[in-house]
Amino acid sequence: MSNGDIFVGEVIGTAILILFGAGVCAAVTLRYSKARAAGWVVIAFGWGFGVLAGAYTAAPLSGGHLNPAVTLGIAVDTGEWGKVWVYLLGQMVGAMIGAVLCYLTYFAQFQANVSKTGTTEGTADEPVPTLGIFSTIPEIRHPVANLVTEIVATVGLVLPILAFGLTEGLGESGTLVLIVSLLVVGIGLSLGGPTGYAINPARDLGPRIVHTFLPIPNKGTSDWSYAWIPVVGPLIGGALAGLVYNAAF
Amino acid sequence: MSNGDIFVGEVIGTAILILFGAGVCAAVTLRYSKARAAGWVVIAFGWGFGVLAGAYTAAPLSGGHLNPAVTLGIAVDTGEWGKVWVYLLGQMVGAMIGAVLCYLTYFAQFQANVSKTGTTEGTADEPVPTLGIFSTIPEIRHPVANLVTEIVATVGLVLPILAFGLTEGLGESGTLVLIVSLLVVGIGLSLGGPTGYAINPARDLGPRIVHTFLPIPNKGTSDWSYAWIPVVGPLIGGALAGLVYNAAF
Amino acid sequence: MSNGDIFVGEVIGTAILILFGAGVCAAVTLRYSKARAAGWVVIAFGWGFGVLAGAYTAAPLSGGHLNPAVTLGIAVDTGEWGKVWVYLLGQMVGAMIGAVLCYLTYFAQFQANVSKTGTTEGTADEPVPTLGIFSTIPEIRHPVANLVTEIVATVGLVLPILAFGLTEGLGESGTLVLIVSLLVVGIGLSLGGPTGYAINPARDLGPRIVHTFLPIPNKGTSDWSYAWIPVVGPLIGGALAGLVYNAAF
Amino acid sequence: MSNGDIFVGEVIGTAILILFGAGVCAAVTLRYSKARAAGWVVIAFGWGFGVLAGAYTAAPLSGGHLNPAVTLGIAVDTGEWGKVWVYLLGQMVGAMIGAVLCYLTYFAQFQANVSKTGTTEGTADEPVPTLGIFSTIPEIRHPVANLVTEIVATVGLVLPILAFGLTEGLGESGTLVLIVSLLVVGIGLSLGGPTGYAINPARDLGPRIVHTFLPIPNKGTSDWSYAWIPVVGPLIGGALAGLVYNAAF
Repeated sequence: MSNGDIFVGEVIGTAILILFGAGVCAAVTLRYSKARAAGWVVIAFGWGFGVLAGAYTAAPLSGGHLNPAVTLGIAVDTGEWGKVWVYLLGQMVGAMIGAVLCYLTYFAQFQANVSKTGTTEGTADEPVPTLGIFSTIPEIRHPVANLVTEIVATVGLVLPILAFGLTEGLGESGTLVLIVSLLVVGIGLSLGGPTGYAINPARDLGPRIVHTFLPIPNKGTSDWSYAWIPVVGPLIGGALAGLVYNAAF
Repeated sequence: MSNGDIFVGEVIGTAILILFGAGVCAAVTLRYSKARAAGWVVIAFGWGFGVLAGAYTAAPLSGGHLNPAVTLGIAVDTGEWGKVWVYLLGQMVGAMIGAVLCYLTYFAQFQANVSKTGTTEGTADEPVPTLGIFSTIPEIRHPVANLVTEIVATVGLVLPILAFGLTEGLGESGTLVLIVSLLVVGIGLSLGGPTGYAINPARDLGPRIVHTFLPIPNKGTSDWSYAWIPVVGPLIGGALAGLVYNAAF
Repeated sequence: MSNGDIFVGEVIGTAILILFGAGVCAAVTLRYSKARAAGWVVIAFGWGFGVLAGAYTAAPLSGGHLNPAVTLGIAVDTGEWGKVWVYLLGQMVGAMIGAVLCYLTYFAQFQANVSKTGTTEGTADEPVPTLGIFSTIPEIRHPVANLVTEIVATVGLVLPILAFGLTEGLGESGTLVLIVSLLVVGIGLSLGGPTGYAINPARDLGPRIVHTFLPIPNKGTSDWSYAWIPVVGPLIGGALAGLVYNAAF
Repeated sequence: MSNGDIFVGEVIGTAILILFGAGVCAAVTLRYSKARAAGWVVIAFGWGFGVLAGAYTAAPLSGGHLNPAVTLGIAVDTGEWGKVWVYLLGQMVGAMIGAVLCYLTYFAQFQANVSKTGTTEGTADEPVPTLGIFSTIPEIRHPVANLVTEIVATVGLVLPILAFGLTEGLGESGTLVLIVSLLVVGIGLSLGGPTGYAINPARDLGPRIVHTFLPIPNKGTSDWSYAWIPVVGPLIGGALAGLVYNAAF
């Protein structure tokens, strides 16, 4: 795969992932959304099917990593580091584009965070904090515990991904991405409770940058003091998964 | 594929899609339905498995587009426009048949929108607006934002569909339609909040025509002033997806 | 396939289907169940994965019909009627065994329909009607509309099943049953609202017989006046699907 | 497969299974979890996708049993008992590791079972019993009925697993584990109501041991008087499934 294909694939794939992922958070968070308060099962499946959409789309160009932790885990496993920077660059650019697309998709809802324009149904309500649509927020702010949560959840993502390729026929049959997307649903359901499962540095950092600059009414804090945890935790988890994989398989 | 096979395939497939899709909206909307108020996750999976049912059924005859935006995206990609009209005609006829089948399936519930006949459990309640069972209604009426939402969501449907065919073994293994149906679930969960995700001109226009003429008690408005957006938006999105696909892959 | 294999396969497969299907209805209906009131999405997925469990188990012996409407649709399509009676017999026996297994699985809960024995948490509450765990009950009692609902829903099951076999690689890849089970989830979500989607004469009649004889405390009516609709409707639907399939494909 | 590979595979796979399974129970049980009270559908899918994650990961090393009842059913079927102890040992060690990982992932939430440290949002609330995160608890304490429930549910797991391998192409196509994981979702939805569906001695006993020793604040009882049922029931069910399979197939 050429550097150009990898970059384009990761940009498009990660943009789709974040469009769907941030989108489902917008869908359940924002007033005047049909999925308002639809619950955790909607969040988990929305992110999982975002992986499905993004990774199948990117697969023919870049293999569809969409996640620096996955790229790192594969590099630790294979020892091939030459193209890692292309993946990371594409993932960050894609994540930022996806966050902007989510903003455009829910534009009227974001604008209505001050007052519901263009309708006659009501007037302004209490604004909703919007950072949770873009980036993760821990339920309990405890740096060590939050970091451990992100590390464990990322190992729970990357170690299976590395091992899945060994199951006879799985990679070749075209169903590998489907399995990974259901795995992501599972991580959300099971391990997302404490920190909202970033498990992907680009997924958290890219949209946080976008959130900082977007002109969303009453958007609230971008919470940069927490931003390092969903970057460092997943990177440690991805590398750890690569090491465990090399030792055990 | 002959024109006859394409037409029959698209009619049957789109009728099944709309029977399931309008059906799930009836299921959660109408009183005296066991799925009353069952939530957004039911809507999203109901439409997705409607795609699964309709597209696998139509696949051997027509390839199972069931959506003018998909047909348009493929035509932009391949440059083959000769059979586009057959697809569109079949999709519109099928969508209207599907809407009628949904009406028949929920006949007693629609009749009970005035008074619950045939039971002793109660008498007339406040009628429910019925257009949302057949066609999409935006949460916030904002033509530009609604159009952008439909365009982005349709690109999120058609670009992956075009790219999925490139994943080795996916098309041949018979799982392509399964992946597309889960993609549609994902679009509903993530991008359906603002406008109810038409992402398919036939899905919205055909049932709206049927709604206009069906003798449903207290059916409410058919809202023709909004009708152009879920037609124009998805067509722009489908064409845009074809262009992006040609440029990137 | 020998008559013996067909019979054993359909007995085991249908028993598993009804164990899961009646089981999920017990799970959401009965007091002192962890899934009490868990909603329609649980019902629909429970029945769908019951098809998955039963049909994959029966597949190597009998092909896994588990439903007289499916057997009838295939017979109408192929013109082979010689083994139809073996299928039907196995399905009825299996459905009755499955209903008894469900009763045993939820024995303490059924007993607690009078008073919660073996616990200190409370005493007798208002008994719950139990027929809905075993057989279908319409929301609005309207024989013609109920019959039409069952016919349409069964066509929506059997026509896709017949057509799925034509998709290249689907039958051979072992994923056919998975697709059918998700189709059944979709029928439940979309078309189950009015009558509870019998779409299978054995699924409704077998457990209704068992319900009539089981010593469940305060079990309520077995409602035999409605029993013909979930038998006749699905049989008409299955035959109709076979005719449409022969005409269209 | 060497004893070492089997052991390592079962340890890793069962640890992942319990991390996800106990994790989803923590997610819906503990205060200050984003999935608090998210309902039974989340529990069932969380455990099912835990099977998916663990079994695909373990598959290349050990075949991915992750469950003494499955190992027993296969041994009864094949008559090969030599490596059973390696499987059981790996499963028990893995289950205990998984329970510890779940504890670490939800560390701040477990600590907050006394008082919510590290936040300013509130102070101590009523502690939540924590055993249900680790091991199963019956809704109605009735040893015979609870045992029957676990036996039937385990037959409903192991008999299909044994039979699935006979479906042409299923095992080879790499989708077998996916089907089994959806089967586990179905068992949870349908048969989990009375006892919480251990259906796996290691899944219940390993985490119960860990729960006994972990320093969780206000953790409540470890309920050892019930502990034999989710061990004995699944073992009987697994052996019974092997016998039925040998007789019928």
